[in-house]
Amino acid sequence: MHYESVAQALEKLRKLEKTYTAYVHAQGVIELDAATAAPKGSWEGRGITAGVLSEVMYDLIANPENGELLSYLKEHREELDEMAQREVEVMEKNFLRMNRIPAEEYVEYNVLLNDAQAAWEKAKNTSDFECFRPYLEKIVAFNRKFAGYYDPTVPAYDALLNEYEEGMTMQTLDAFFGKVRSTIVPLMGKILEKSEPEHPFVHRGYSVDQQRKFSDYLMEVMGLDRNYCTIAESEHPFTINYNNKDVRITTHYFEDSLLPSMSSVIHEGGHAMYELGADDKYNYTILYGGTSMGIHESQSRFYENIIGRSEAFIRFIYPKVKELFPEQMADVDANDLYRALNRAEPSLIRIDADELSYCLHIMVRYEIEKQLIAGTLEVKDVPAEWNRLYKEYVGVDVPNDAAGCLQDIHWSFGNIGYFPSYALGSAYSAQMLHVMRQELGDIYADVEKGDLSRVTGWLREHIHQYASFKKPGQVFEDACGKFDATYFTDYLTEKFTKLYHL
Amino acid sequence: MHYESVAQALEKLRKLEKTYTAYVHAQGVIELDAATAAPKGSWEGRGITAGVLSEVMYDLIANPENGELLSYLKEHREELDEMAQREVEVMEKNFLRMNRIPAEEYVEYNVLLNDAQAAWEKAKNTSDFECFRPYLEKIVAFNRKFAGYYDPTVPAYDALLNEYEEGMTMQTLDAFFGKVRSTIVPLMGKILEKSEPEHPFVHRGYSVDQQRKFSDYLMEVMGLDRNYCTIAESEHPFTINYNNKDVRITTHYFEDSLLPSMSSVIHEGGHAMYELGADDKYNYTILYGGTSMGIHESQSRFYENIIGRSEAFIRFIYPKVKELFPEQMADVDANDLYRALNRAEPSLIRIDADELSYCLHIMVRYEIEKQLIAGTLEVKDVPAEWNRLYKEYVGVDVPNDAAGCLQDIHWSFGNIGYFPSYALGSAYSAQMLHVMRQELGDIYADVEKGDLSRVTGWLREHIHQYASFKKPGQVFEDACGKFDATYFTDYLTEKFTKLYHL
Repeated sequence: MHYESVAQALEKLRKLEKTYTAYVHAQGVIELDAATAAPKGSWEGRGITAGVLSEVMYDLIANPENGELLSYLKEHREELDEMAQREVEVMEKNFLRMNRIPAEEYVEYNVLLNDAQAAWEKAKNTSDFECFRPYLEKIVAFNRKFAGYYDPTVPAYDALLNEYEEGMTMQTLDAFFGKVRSTIVPLMGKILEKSEPEHPFVHRGYSVDQQRKFSDYLMEVMGLDRNYCTIAESEHPFTINYNNKDVRITTHYFEDSLLPSMSSVIHEGGHAMYELGADDKYNYTILYGGTSMGIHESQSRFYENIIGRSEAFIRFIYPKVKELFPEQMADVDANDLYRALNRAEPSLIRIDADELSYCLHIMVRYEIEKQLIAGTLEVKDVPAEWNRLYKEYVGVDVPNDAAGCLQDIHWSFGNIGYFPSYALGSAYSAQMLHVMRQELGDIYADVEKGDLSRVTGWLREHIHQYASFKKPGQVFEDACGKFDATYFTDYLTEKFTKLYHL
Repeated sequence: MHYESVAQALEKLRKLEKTYTAYVHAQGVIELDAATAAPKGSWEGRGITAGVLSEVMYDLIANPENGELLSYLKEHREELDEMAQREVEVMEKNFLRMNRIPAEEYVEYNVLLNDAQAAWEKAKNTSDFECFRPYLEKIVAFNRKFAGYYDPTVPAYDALLNEYEEGMTMQTLDAFFGKVRSTIVPLMGKILEKSEPEHPFVHRGYSVDQQRKFSDYLMEVMGLDRNYCTIAESEHPFTINYNNKDVRITTHYFEDSLLPSMSSVIHEGGHAMYELGADDKYNYTILYGGTSMGIHESQSRFYENIIGRSEAFIRFIYPKVKELFPEQMADVDANDLYRALNRAEPSLIRIDADELSYCLHIMVRYEIEKQLIAGTLEVKDVPAEWNRLYKEYVGVDVPNDAAGCLQDIHWSFGNIGYFPSYALGSAYSAQMLHVMRQELGDIYADVEKGDLSRVTGWLREHIHQYASFKKPGQVFEDACGKFDATYFTDYLTEKFTKLYHL
């Protein structure tokens, strides 16, 4: 292959990026439709289409001509601006990864994932792990094999972790989780001695219609532009984005509780803020989209916990909650709402967990994934191991698999190595808060007035605008300096000590 | 290109069909999302993706290798079964059509259509034709050019008609519409002399939530399997289908009226029945999907009018209507509901038109399209011509363009030559009713019990199962014999003479 000029080669690369982005868009719309609108019986046809699209995308990226194109552009690296350099780097990462996975395995895997999601949903609804087991077995087997393709020189699980958080290893995570656990466990022990009962308002009836209005309100307070961001309903809340003017979040409403959807909307809204805040120039390039799962979770958990579970935020939204749910909130004041949202108690469901014990839920998944990928745990033994670890780490008995190892959608999406990002994101967000307060002063005074503009402005300036232009480590360090989990453990200690007068 | 065997060539054709079908599926999901769920500001990115997908689909079908493949298969026609013969025929039609349209025009047109839909919606909402005019001008110009590509030997509008209804011509339509008009106009004249006032229940408030429940009920009565068919909400009701296990209908609820959405749901439900009733073997082949717009409309209008506006059907659903809307229906009996649904009166909006005057609405569009494509009418003069024809044909004054030439989405989809299918479909459906009654006897006795199984069974046996395997003329004639508009005019005369005691 001969290129007339660097400009011509770059044009070719950008055409490739645009085509690839269009397929990702199409795939993403099909995925969103599947989770929010498609008839239950329609999975088979969607699987066929997913298979065809995966094959086309594989051929598009793995095409040997791309290797020549990327080599040429790397030879002329000096002539490229920083953005183009990063485009070459990210495309090469994709190219190499695809070329390591044989085409038929890639396609087979994508078809499997489509079927697995339907199987997981059925398994969860009937609390029947057996229904999902064969799919999870295949997903684990694929991931073990893929890990070897990604990087055969490191332990398989490290290779998978690196897919979600560049450079992350079990060694780092073991140390991180060790430190976090040694903070959380004694704090939780002291809190449990105080045994604060649950306020009855938590489980009163909340009509879905009123909850929908509440979601609209929360999105408005967050400053999510509804012209570019919608909300839909799905079994498991998630965010999906096609460009910085087309982002969707979902939630799941429960008739008997207000708080789960409230937390989901703010959490997914945080993801959405990140994607909406990307600079226009990254649209339809390979650099569009958040730079890593950990940085993404830092944004969702920043809004969910550091803003959404703060006293200031609750004081601001309390009148609206009372207006939307006058009967349910008749005997509830802002402080009750604040305490309910922050009530620390060992529990079964990760997404409903309090901010303190949340990381314990992640550690269970981390331990299971490590063992599955190492081959020291079989899929059939996951329910027993899950239940054992929940008892040991979280301190609860798991009554059934729906409330146990079937609660999360992630494995059915093939995401193994993703869960640690949630804990990392929480830790990142605490350090961001620290720096933000140093630079902006009393942000909670703004929050109490319902004004998130300075908070969002800071995140946009330091994180959001860059999309995937900066690597995760770089974007974090440019904003906050070296990562140090102490900011997170200090934040938890301070918050819960004050909350429970420990 | 050399083929080892007919079997190998056929396998290649079917792979092509499957790939093409997957793209159509992806495009369709994006289209559905755009109309039902996407944020308003997201059209730009969708346009880019639509452009890329169109280009890929163009290359896929127009690929010269397909020409060789199709020639080879045609040479071995005798060795192919009937289904494969038809697949070759339909694929060749697509191949030839694509090859007549230059790639860049095809892509440009598809991007234009994406933008046109957003412009049309804005224009309609603000009743500002100028906002849509430049798009419509380009759409008309493209269609005039495309008509020459499709078939340069016939008048341009005939070439467009043939796209929606194989073999249809202005000559046939002029005669058909002449006959229909000469029946409708005198009937309408006599009805207007009787001047029956509108029942007040028609415009009482109907909550959207209750209307949603009513839609669910109607779909249940029709026998639409919700496991394979969902309903969503959009500006303009439509049906879209990906395979016989994934069909979607949409409706538009109006708070101040029950009847528009009721009619839409039954109409779109009729389209859905057709697509759900296709034989499994056509899925993921080029033969999946209804065989023509006229046959499609015969199914939607069969359910909407011949079933949905029948006395028997209304008597059956009346108790449910009363249960869902007790206050609004307090002073309404089944006969009032029947008469309201069949009240013949010249009106402005096609989709709300009564069964009798409906074809007059179509004739206005037919006359305008003929002139636009012949070049004897400019787009800027469409509003004036529309208003003039509405006065002459329908007998009403058009107050603004939103209620006039902006009321339909079709032109923004590029569908010029489509509208006559609605009238043809109505006429086909009347002849189907005639044959069905000859063969099955008193179908309205079934309908009055809410049992549509024999009706649907007949349609499935004679129409639905074949998808595009039979050509429209063939499927109709195999079921009903030669088409004769007299069945339609007789049906209208009988129904409205009885209804109004003429």
